[in-house]
Amino acid sequence: SVPPGVLPLCHRPPAWGRAARQPPGLPLAPSRAFSNNKIMVELDESSGVATMKFKSPPVNSLSLDFLTEFSISLEKLENNRACRGVIITSAIPKIFSSGLDITEMCGKSTEHYTEFWRAVQEMWLRLYGSNLVTVAAVNGNSPAGGCLIALSCDYRIMVDNPKFSIGLNETKLGIVAPFWFKDTFVNVVGQRVAERSLQLGSLHPAPEALKLGLVDELVPEEKIKEKTGAVMAQWLAIPDHARQLTKSMMRKAVLDRLLAHREEDIQNFISFTSKESIQKSLRMYMEMLKKKKG
Amino acid sequence: SVPPGVLPLCHRPPAWGRAARQPPGLPLAPSRAFSNNKIMVELDESSGVATMKFKSPPVNSLSLDFLTEFSISLEKLENNRACRGVIITSAIPKIFSSGLDITEMCGKSTEHYTEFWRAVQEMWLRLYGSNLVTVAAVNGNSPAGGCLIALSCDYRIMVDNPKFSIGLNETKLGIVAPFWFKDTFVNVVGQRVAERSLQLGSLHPAPEALKLGLVDELVPEEKIKEKTGAVMAQWLAIPDHARQLTKSMMRKAVLDRLLAHREEDIQNFISFTSKESIQKSLRMYMEMLKKKKG
Amino acid sequence: SVPPGVLPLCHRPPAWGRAARQPPGLPLAPSRAFSNNKIMVELDESSGVATMKFKSPPVNSLSLDFLTEFSISLEKLENNRACRGVIITSAIPKIFSSGLDITEMCGKSTEHYTEFWRAVQEMWLRLYGSNLVTVAAVNGNSPAGGCLIALSCDYRIMVDNPKFSIGLNETKLGIVAPFWFKDTFVNVVGQRVAERSLQLGSLHPAPEALKLGLVDELVPEEKIKEKTGAVMAQWLAIPDHARQLTKSMMRKAVLDRLLAHREEDIQNFISFTSKESIQKSLRMYMEMLKKKKG
Repeated sequence: SVPPGVLPLCHRPPAWGRAARQPPGLPLAPSRAFSNNKIMVELDESSGVATMKFKSPPVNSLSLDFLTEFSISLEKLENNRACRGVIITSAIPKIFSSGLDITEMCGKSTEHYTEFWRAVQEMWLRLYGSNLVTVAAVNGNSPAGGCLIALSCDYRIMVDNPKFSIGLNETKLGIVAPFWFKDTFVNVVGQRVAERSLQLGSLHPAPEALKLGLVDELVPEEKIKEKTGAVMAQWLAIPDHARQLTKSMMRKAVLDRLLAHREEDIQNFISFTSKESIQKSLRMYMEMLKKKKG
Repeated sequence: SVPPGVLPLCHRPPAWGRAARQPPGLPLAPSRAFSNNKIMVELDESSGVATMKFKSPPVNSLSLDFLTEFSISLEKLENNRACRGVIITSAIPKIFSSGLDITEMCGKSTEHYTEFWRAVQEMWLRLYGSNLVTVAAVNGNSPAGGCLIALSCDYRIMVDNPKFSIGLNETKLGIVAPFWFKDTFVNVVGQRVAERSLQLGSLHPAPEALKLGLVDELVPEEKIKEKTGAVMAQWLAIPDHARQLTKSMMRKAVLDRLLAHREEDIQNFISFTSKESIQKSLRMYMEMLKKKKG
Repeated sequence: SVPPGVLPLCHRPPAWGRAARQPPGLPLAPSRAFSNNKIMVELDESSGVATMKFKSPPVNSLSLDFLTEFSISLEKLENNRACRGVIITSAIPKIFSSGLDITEMCGKSTEHYTEFWRAVQEMWLRLYGSNLVTVAAVNGNSPAGGCLIALSCDYRIMVDNPKFSIGLNETKLGIVAPFWFKDTFVNVVGQRVAERSLQLGSLHPAPEALKLGLVDELVPEEKIKEKTGAVMAQWLAIPDHARQLTKSMMRKAVLDRLLAHREEDIQNFISFTSKESIQKSLRMYMEMLKKKKG
């Protein structure tokens, strides 16, 4: 099977022009934040640690543009020899990411659904299969796709605030998490916790998420940067090559499963999303969100 | 593979005559307990919640008749659009179910063993693959097949009494739980707990069962009905279709494994059960039970 | 697939000459310690419990000779009808086993690497697939291959001393635990704990090992013999045949995976070990160990 690190990106103009075509391994300017729209990427060359900070108001929803930028940014870091680890966090208060952007799934063409879903897959394949050490600093709510991003990292630190919750709550919207969301969830919390949590579409407040193993530790908000750095240093103390081979061995079966069924998964998404009943659910959900805001 | 919901029942006269041939979806009379011998079934049409109450003295053992009635009752509820969830419990004090009826496995013909084992498979395929929300209210001892029924539900509430225990204790009788009992057990408690518990044939007192994750919560006996209703309401708050697809995704691999090996599994059961050494073990065990009673 | 109990041993002169060719089932002299070099084997015929005590100074490292002796000793016990269980422990203070002997992996021929790795596989196939009840009394440090031996037993009791630790720390040496070490680890602690522990190459102090489920209980050093005996008696109370079939059912998938990929696994080991970068890491590690001692 094709290793996820060499998958072709979906054919869209990259968010920052030709930058994405930069040859692998060419280092970025030291510690320079490179320009893009929705994700701030900063690399500290002395430590080899990059930070990807989501800043797509209001709620860091995973639109096609966001996902594309995410995959390109991660690929860029992956190909940069100066980079060994990446911290994923949010620049927006109280929200890590609200998950997939529902407007991308409502009233659009089959072509659009195809492109969107491929970008969701791409994001996950790159992140779950990343050779970098990946640490999620979950500093706000993290439902659905936001939870998937956190689950795909090597380690999850969450702000110790019971108002912030995390989980795959798809069923509550009348939709179903795809099998690879489920596989990723099971690999973190085990079959039983997953079975219950996914069926109920539970959003677990931080203390409960810790108890279930959905996150690895909780820290006060003001300590999360420091703590994330310390965890990253611990993981970077391990020789990269041995750690990468071990990570790949642990995750390969689940990555291979999507790679083997990628087109079917896209077809499933399209046929499910195109159903009038699902479109109706999603529209109602968006109305509810709008009213909440208003 | 064939979805478990449409498996043909084994060819026996159904326990309440033609009732089982009722076309799918035709609603029962509102909240009427329908007559049968070993399981009392009651449907509350206002909530959509049915209760299956085992009342087969002395110990709700899973005879061929009991199993057939179970599968037919469940199929009937499954086909009744007014029904969305089922609570499984016992009407007999101190016992949930004692498991497979050993008299069905002793000194009988190959034809009988075949029919019996197919009915055991059928019961599990229907319950584990049920589209309904299934909650076990374990209000007494629950060894072997009794434990399997509880494990096959979506949620398990047990009476908080250390005198009641639950587990797959087959090895203690010199027999072996089949692979799909094992798969069901592993899906609830994980590989390690299962490996130890199944080898030792452990019956876990309620507090230990909670600790191991074999049941989800303990409640005082007088609260079990109220609590079970509350849990059911929580599960019914989720849109059925999304919950059902999610449940199927979580359980499909294990269901498919039996469906793919159903006839082999029957042959294994017959050849194992027909062994003189096993027959002797089972006869000795029955003698012991008789003496205990006397 | 070939059941592990009948695998041909690698073609080396057995450590104690023709003894290994003794026909299966011929009992040893009652409770006689039989002579060999690196492992003391004692069988108590009254209880059916053997003890394999590692006594290969300084640190019970798993050399080719040690591994061969281990496999032959275990095969001998397996074939001895008087033996139903085996306790595995160390006669050397503070160390259970330091794992694979790195000198066997440094500057040797391809033939040697092949023979060595086959012996490592053999040891695991026999132990993980053993029909005997296997209890590890971990009375000292147990890194890497030492941990694998403990993980392959049915039950692990560790001395309650935070100075003793256990884990698969391969990544810290720049090497990678093979897939079947990983599978064995996952079967004990689950996917998530394994993913983190294997990537970090963690050595868990006894109390942490207990918390993670890596060992089943901790006892004071002076109680370990008594406790191990009590646990063994509990397991021997179960009819052998039912317990063995259950154990085999639980472990078969993981055993079969190595059996199906045994030669590939040897080739992987050789090509990895032969790399100059790996040889360098291993030489540096050995230098460090020498300095530590000196």
